[in-house]
Amino acid sequence: MEAESQMINFTRGVPPAEAFPTEQLQACATAILGRHSAVVLQYQPAAGYGPLREWLGGRHGVPAEAVLVGNGSLQLQAFLSRVLTAPGDTILVERPSYDRAITAFRERGLRVVGVPIQADGFDVEALEGLVRELRPRLMYLIPDFQNPSGLTTSLCKRERLLELADQYGFWVVEDNPYRELRYRGEPLPSLHSLDGRRVLFLSSFSKVLSPGLRVGYLIGPTDLVARVARLAEDTYVSPSMLSQGIAAEFCQRGWLEPNIERLKALYKPRLEATLAALETQLSAAQWTRPEGGFFVGLDLPQGIDGTRVRAQAQVLGLKLSEGRGFFASRPGDPDGNAFLRLPFCALPEPEIREGIRRLAEAVAA
Amino acid sequence: MEAESQMINFTRGVPPAEAFPTEQLQACATAILGRHSAVVLQYQPAAGYGPLREWLGGRHGVPAEAVLVGNGSLQLQAFLSRVLTAPGDTILVERPSYDRAITAFRERGLRVVGVPIQADGFDVEALEGLVRELRPRLMYLIPDFQNPSGLTTSLCKRERLLELADQYGFWVVEDNPYRELRYRGEPLPSLHSLDGRRVLFLSSFSKVLSPGLRVGYLIGPTDLVARVARLAEDTYVSPSMLSQGIAAEFCQRGWLEPNIERLKALYKPRLEATLAALETQLSAAQWTRPEGGFFVGLDLPQGIDGTRVRAQAQVLGLKLSEGRGFFASRPGDPDGNAFLRLPFCALPEPEIREGIRRLAEAVAA
Repeated sequence: MEAESQMINFTRGVPPAEAFPTEQLQACATAILGRHSAVVLQYQPAAGYGPLREWLGGRHGVPAEAVLVGNGSLQLQAFLSRVLTAPGDTILVERPSYDRAITAFRERGLRVVGVPIQADGFDVEALEGLVRELRPRLMYLIPDFQNPSGLTTSLCKRERLLELADQYGFWVVEDNPYRELRYRGEPLPSLHSLDGRRVLFLSSFSKVLSPGLRVGYLIGPTDLVARVARLAEDTYVSPSMLSQGIAAEFCQRGWLEPNIERLKALYKPRLEATLAALETQLSAAQWTRPEGGFFVGLDLPQGIDGTRVRAQAQVLGLKLSEGRGFFASRPGDPDGNAFLRLPFCALPEPEIREGIRRLAEAVAA
Repeated sequence: MEAESQMINFTRGVPPAEAFPTEQLQACATAILGRHSAVVLQYQPAAGYGPLREWLGGRHGVPAEAVLVGNGSLQLQAFLSRVLTAPGDTILVERPSYDRAITAFRERGLRVVGVPIQADGFDVEALEGLVRELRPRLMYLIPDFQNPSGLTTSLCKRERLLELADQYGFWVVEDNPYRELRYRGEPLPSLHSLDGRRVLFLSSFSKVLSPGLRVGYLIGPTDLVARVARLAEDTYVSPSMLSQGIAAEFCQRGWLEPNIERLKALYKPRLEATLAALETQLSAAQWTRPEGGFFVGLDLPQGIDGTRVRAQAQVLGLKLSEGRGFFASRPGDPDGNAFLRLPFCALPEPEIREGIRRLAEAVAA
């Protein structure tokens, strides 16, 4: 069988090539260079391309001055930590959380502590205890279809977090790149829409248009955005303006929503295939039932060693991510070895089914 | 007179809009998206777009693995300081030097000390004294058509610097974005071509193609390039791949050299107009006679207060840069208040002449 012989990658959360609206992007590149070459080929203010800031502001109900567009949202998160924290500060993240975000926070010299999550988001009692004990400077979370678990924070937990942030005076960094990719259920209000004073909202075009453009954005209080812009200017003068011009043109033409609908139609059956295959093949494990996004999170059955499963899977032609990088654990906390992130968007359904069959075989071996 | 009423900007070193080969860039965008969309729209290795690394490697006589392409060279300089220095280290720069580079080094917590420069580059005796006294970790310099002075380091000074670097064990960071824009005289070998083990070479497409693309590159020992790549990945995952794809297409089509020739034909008369106007209008001042690049550097006549000249120039419709940012001075050194950077490339000759007339008026006022 052909699928047997090929390595299947359940590793990185990247879109498949068929996700990219290439011809539309060609048209946008030609148009923006035709009309605005003197702008998009030039140095520009570090806060980003004006028309894109305006369009995003309109979409999120804020003025353009509350929006900063940069080279992907990871670097904007790092700028935010530079502005909001000092080395040695403590911050909270979900446990598990996005490994690159954890790395970037640690790079700033921060103490990163994980708050355990449940099916409807962080454990409130644990959060309250950690807030009182550690007085964090900020909490970073991905409330919709979280990376790496796929879980979504419930409305009442969103509200509770904002109350705590207000009471204890910490910032909330809401990283929300998957939000638009909802395949089932009803959207919940973003944390930023619930409290624009305390919440810094990060998102990007990587999951809804193209990662290679490297266009991410930050929405927050205008004074804070201005401080991040100064830091961005000192770091890279201007962000990539042509990319931003192309993204702006794509949005202004009304092409973003139809593109998102197309992506949802592409990804939804992949999520369903993943969940169905897990049900059939791996019923002894526990996994999340995401309503959108890129990932299903899975805990291996009790007593199964994750390191052994990863090694065995590799032999069977299945690549899995190391789980520990997602866990900002304190001594005594779970270390993530038994956790698997399953990114399903880049794989056609037959590969998903074969991949999970191999996973079950690796677990049983 | 129309020119009288408009503000003339002798401030930033940016190319004029007529410098941008817009139609060629449209063709390159269409082509690269047509052929390689699955690559340039996707996440890619942080070291940059493979074919561009190869092309640049070929141009500089190094393997592709010795080249890293990022979002402009300023950020690559910051990555380099992260890899080569620790906070508290001392580094040397020319005095004057590029203000943003000085800021970025200081942001790293480095002690930045300026080496005075002469018509043929840094003062060798001063450099030797500072190297012995301070044992710098690296020297950063712009050997060709320096920003902000326009000066070029002579061959014998290049060789002497490399000897000192070898003897005292420091790195040389060669920032060389203007090198190809030579309007007169013969090119000198780059520092990197003289010693590829000790020299990290930085350049970019900003001055020879477009700043808005944000494509800069680093050439250095492959192990060091690999370390910078890991830092880049932790910072922004991938650089802007579409921009790099467009730049690669432009280069592979053989369009870079003709574009550089076109730019030289555009800029050379602007340099000549600047020098001629200074001769006519400001003979009491001292200024450099660059053979290329973007800038003429000027020292105001003895006893003239730079702060007053800048304020007066503003009233007369001429914007000038603050000089102090270019001077990494120790107590007792000149502070740069009497220094003016005159970027001539973005101004048509009549504006240059009118600008220098206003400058002379401001000096005389």
